[in-house]
Amino acid sequence: MSTNEAVLCVDAPDRKGLVAAIAGFLSQHDANIVAFDEHVSPTEARFFARVVFEMDGLVIGRDEIEPAFAPLARRYEMNWALHFSDSPVRVGLLVSRHEHCLYDLLWRHRAGELPIQIPIVLSNHAELAEVAKFFDIPFEYCPILEGDKDAQERVMLNHLRQHDVHLVVLARYMQILGPQFLHHYHQRVINIHHSFLPAFIGGRPYHQAYERGVKLIGATAHYATDDLDEGPIIEQDVCRVTHSDGVETLVRIGRDIERTVLARAVRMHAEHRVIVHGRRTIVFA
Amino acid sequence: MSTNEAVLCVDAPDRKGLVAAIAGFLSQHDANIVAFDEHVSPTEARFFARVVFEMDGLVIGRDEIEPAFAPLARRYEMNWALHFSDSPVRVGLLVSRHEHCLYDLLWRHRAGELPIQIPIVLSNHAELAEVAKFFDIPFEYCPILEGDKDAQERVMLNHLRQHDVHLVVLARYMQILGPQFLHHYHQRVINIHHSFLPAFIGGRPYHQAYERGVKLIGATAHYATDDLDEGPIIEQDVCRVTHSDGVETLVRIGRDIERTVLARAVRMHAEHRVIVHGRRTIVFA
Amino acid sequence: MSTNEAVLCVDAPDRKGLVAAIAGFLSQHDANIVAFDEHVSPTEARFFARVVFEMDGLVIGRDEIEPAFAPLARRYEMNWALHFSDSPVRVGLLVSRHEHCLYDLLWRHRAGELPIQIPIVLSNHAELAEVAKFFDIPFEYCPILEGDKDAQERVMLNHLRQHDVHLVVLARYMQILGPQFLHHYHQRVINIHHSFLPAFIGGRPYHQAYERGVKLIGATAHYATDDLDEGPIIEQDVCRVTHSDGVETLVRIGRDIERTVLARAVRMHAEHRVIVHGRRTIVFA
Amino acid sequence: MSTNEAVLCVDAPDRKGLVAAIAGFLSQHDANIVAFDEHVSPTEARFFARVVFEMDGLVIGRDEIEPAFAPLARRYEMNWALHFSDSPVRVGLLVSRHEHCLYDLLWRHRAGELPIQIPIVLSNHAELAEVAKFFDIPFEYCPILEGDKDAQERVMLNHLRQHDVHLVVLARYMQILGPQFLHHYHQRVINIHHSFLPAFIGGRPYHQAYERGVKLIGATAHYATDDLDEGPIIEQDVCRVTHSDGVETLVRIGRDIERTVLARAVRMHAEHRVIVHGRRTIVFA
Repeated sequence: MSTNEAVLCVDAPDRKGLVAAIAGFLSQHDANIVAFDEHVSPTEARFFARVVFEMDGLVIGRDEIEPAFAPLARRYEMNWALHFSDSPVRVGLLVSRHEHCLYDLLWRHRAGELPIQIPIVLSNHAELAEVAKFFDIPFEYCPILEGDKDAQERVMLNHLRQHDVHLVVLARYMQILGPQFLHHYHQRVINIHHSFLPAFIGGRPYHQAYERGVKLIGATAHYATDDLDEGPIIEQDVCRVTHSDGVETLVRIGRDIERTVLARAVRMHAEHRVIVHGRRTIVFA
Repeated sequence: MSTNEAVLCVDAPDRKGLVAAIAGFLSQHDANIVAFDEHVSPTEARFFARVVFEMDGLVIGRDEIEPAFAPLARRYEMNWALHFSDSPVRVGLLVSRHEHCLYDLLWRHRAGELPIQIPIVLSNHAELAEVAKFFDIPFEYCPILEGDKDAQERVMLNHLRQHDVHLVVLARYMQILGPQFLHHYHQRVINIHHSFLPAFIGGRPYHQAYERGVKLIGATAHYATDDLDEGPIIEQDVCRVTHSDGVETLVRIGRDIERTVLARAVRMHAEHRVIVHGRRTIVFA
Repeated sequence: MSTNEAVLCVDAPDRKGLVAAIAGFLSQHDANIVAFDEHVSPTEARFFARVVFEMDGLVIGRDEIEPAFAPLARRYEMNWALHFSDSPVRVGLLVSRHEHCLYDLLWRHRAGELPIQIPIVLSNHAELAEVAKFFDIPFEYCPILEGDKDAQERVMLNHLRQHDVHLVVLARYMQILGPQFLHHYHQRVINIHHSFLPAFIGGRPYHQAYERGVKLIGATAHYATDDLDEGPIIEQDVCRVTHSDGVETLVRIGRDIERTVLARAVRMHAEHRVIVHGRRTIVFA
Repeated sequence: MSTNEAVLCVDAPDRKGLVAAIAGFLSQHDANIVAFDEHVSPTEARFFARVVFEMDGLVIGRDEIEPAFAPLARRYEMNWALHFSDSPVRVGLLVSRHEHCLYDLLWRHRAGELPIQIPIVLSNHAELAEVAKFFDIPFEYCPILEGDKDAQERVMLNHLRQHDVHLVVLARYMQILGPQFLHHYHQRVINIHHSFLPAFIGGRPYHQAYERGVKLIGATAHYATDDLDEGPIIEQDVCRVTHSDGVETLVRIGRDIERTVLARAVRMHAEHRVIVHGRRTIVFA
């Protein structure tokens, strides 16, 4: 994505003329549409779209787009959001002791692979401070003191607020977040679960997978909700295993899937390709 | 795809207002757009789109759409085509002695998986007549007599014309078609090559793959052109193999990839999802 | 597998000298070992092996191998079985109304892809008789009369016995088999479940998958046991899907995975590559 | 692999009694065989095996195994090698400016994923020194001075010799190594090529892939030989791409395949699972 683009995400009751209305609005202001993705859910008669247009040559000020679009949006009862590619999503990473996902995201970020900013890494453990440091990302140790998780989450929320974080990524954060935290970052917390959901919900999924004797193991990136491991799925993948792979080998193979799946989910979100609808996601890949 | 839809395929020089013009035209006639896919090639400033709209409720006659759209198309210098889902693509199958792709396509067709009609199967050998018969599809044996391939191709063209065939599928047809045939069905002949092109061009690709010791084998569906195995690729896939797989095993494993890849390519074409541009294809999957 | 080979499958408590004992026994009788696969489960100290040797040049009669091997087997407390490649496994297919798996197995069988014999197809419905007929396989319609499934299963068992069937394959047979049937064919009934187990156990897995919004769907071939969908898994695979794939599309995509996975599982069993151990399988692929 | 194991790799003309001879030898000295993999190439009547046995409880000194085995090896005309898991392969990494493969290998090494030692990283550029430093691995900058590649390679060989390096890994090293270097490390230089070989041999494979319009891109790890990109393949993998992926996106997607494929190849080699035979490899996975 070049730096002078905007992304408009819309979902609305399906109605004739929606595409023409959106495209007409943009055309009126001399926008060049470079990508238009539409999905209509036939069972629910609901319309979803993601439109990318160039900011160059627009005959309307950047701040004027939203007010100009609002009446149209109201008429069609749209949920909508407008994003600018020169304002990358600010991501806060929460980690515990596993480093593979943290590494992977920080490396991809530094390599310019992800259109995000990472102002802060938070952890309930101190171990991964040096990893963050190597990549020049501020790290805050937020221990759970005397078992008071609410207090610790308030501390974390405070850090996230101070750093203007818009998306929280649980890069193998091993604590379950409370409803208040999740409420604050509703549909903006991405978790990586180390199984192919809905198989092996809960703890020790690789042990469960070994016991069940599955021939593929997987990982799932999803938005975290109050229902553990039940949030809308963004991305999943699997890898083939055999009888000779013990639990330790499953864990090793799984790390590769976890980091790839999480990175893809973060990219999809950061490029505003994901729209949540109930328990499902629309992902304009 | 339900029976009352139309698909509009467009490619044109990229210009502001193209999406709005197309969507506006459809909106004007009260069409409900159920899918809109757009691709802009940044290196070539070229615009590609596939638009699906419902025919129900259209305030314009089916035959009036084309003339009504033509002026707009001229203004934007569009290549374009309009297809109706109740006029499925008429497909002619060319086969030799390998039955797996023929089987697979006929079975999928009968199972209602492919939005096509198959009025005729042609072959330079007689063996597969009984397969066609089982699926109630007319079969014509078109032998190459005294090495005169031109004559045989004229016979085949005649059959195809009589059956109003719009797309020719080479379901492991083991002869190279001449330029006249290919000219007649320009960008409407789909071939399945039993390798991951451009690796192993030409004959005996599984032998070549074995000799080279590759760890994956593949198949490629592409539009046939005068340059053997060089036509625009529609679909490819691969499967893992090991040192213990001899040539015969590669052939067996390959059959599964060939039939899957060919079926997917035929579906993509039949749903008007493929636009050819030079040596490449845009596939709105 | 050429026609003059034998396969010896062994599982036993792990002990030093097991490989030497087996290989020594075969060497003593001038057998040429062409494949030797071994697995030792470290957590259970259990030994599993599959040994393939050529029958040509053996200085012992075919019928003498078993008695000659028995004392060794006793000494090492082996479970073991000896199979000859010129006695292919006799497979009985059970089907209902879905034809895709039946087709696929019969076609592969006729194409020489599977080292099995198929003496009989049984069904609780009459529809698929013509498919069996096309492939020249006897078909018996075994309806469930007045809801008496026990009686119907006895009829089926009778047919299977008469045709000397050793392996039962449920090629989308839509009834749950009773304990008596399963007891009779203990670890010799292969079922294909149309989900990536243990996700979506039970009925309508594609509907469940759609509701959950998974990004991959799968199929699982397993030995049927009294615990529905809980038997030892032989093979699994998945395919990527998107938000735009409705339940019908999932069903269509799933058919391809089902038939591939089932065919692979049948091949693995028929080549004596599968050893069941508890809830898991060792598959020497 | 636990620390008290040995791996015996053998290739020899196929002959009756080979498995028994090897297993018998080990049994004689009270070795417990925990893995036995055998492959017989039917077209060449050649035998390949990899045998893993525990060192604990062996009634023969570690240094006595080789002399004790030698007579047997001679009798059967074996190529053979004996490796001990407590002597991990010493790997030297050669890099240029691309960091993703270097990172990945160093991270996996530190995480304990790879049974190797990495005593040295060499580069013809200085940029990646800090990456090596972060992982506490010595880095030597070996520039090509006045175009004298022979001199530079002698310097590198010297470093490798001083660090007792047994395997050289070209982690996106962008120079072609001369015959003298390759001769010195015959079948012990692993290269990662950023295409699915034999497609897109030579330079700028992602550009070639884009031009050809392939639907999958890949990477190939192979032993480097004098024939560029023609050496025996150890591992390959691919990833799906679409018309909308420009060259830059192919490069990004490709990085993930490159690092995964290279890491797998290094693991296979380091676990002594690879036997080279002519242009092909046997990989006991």
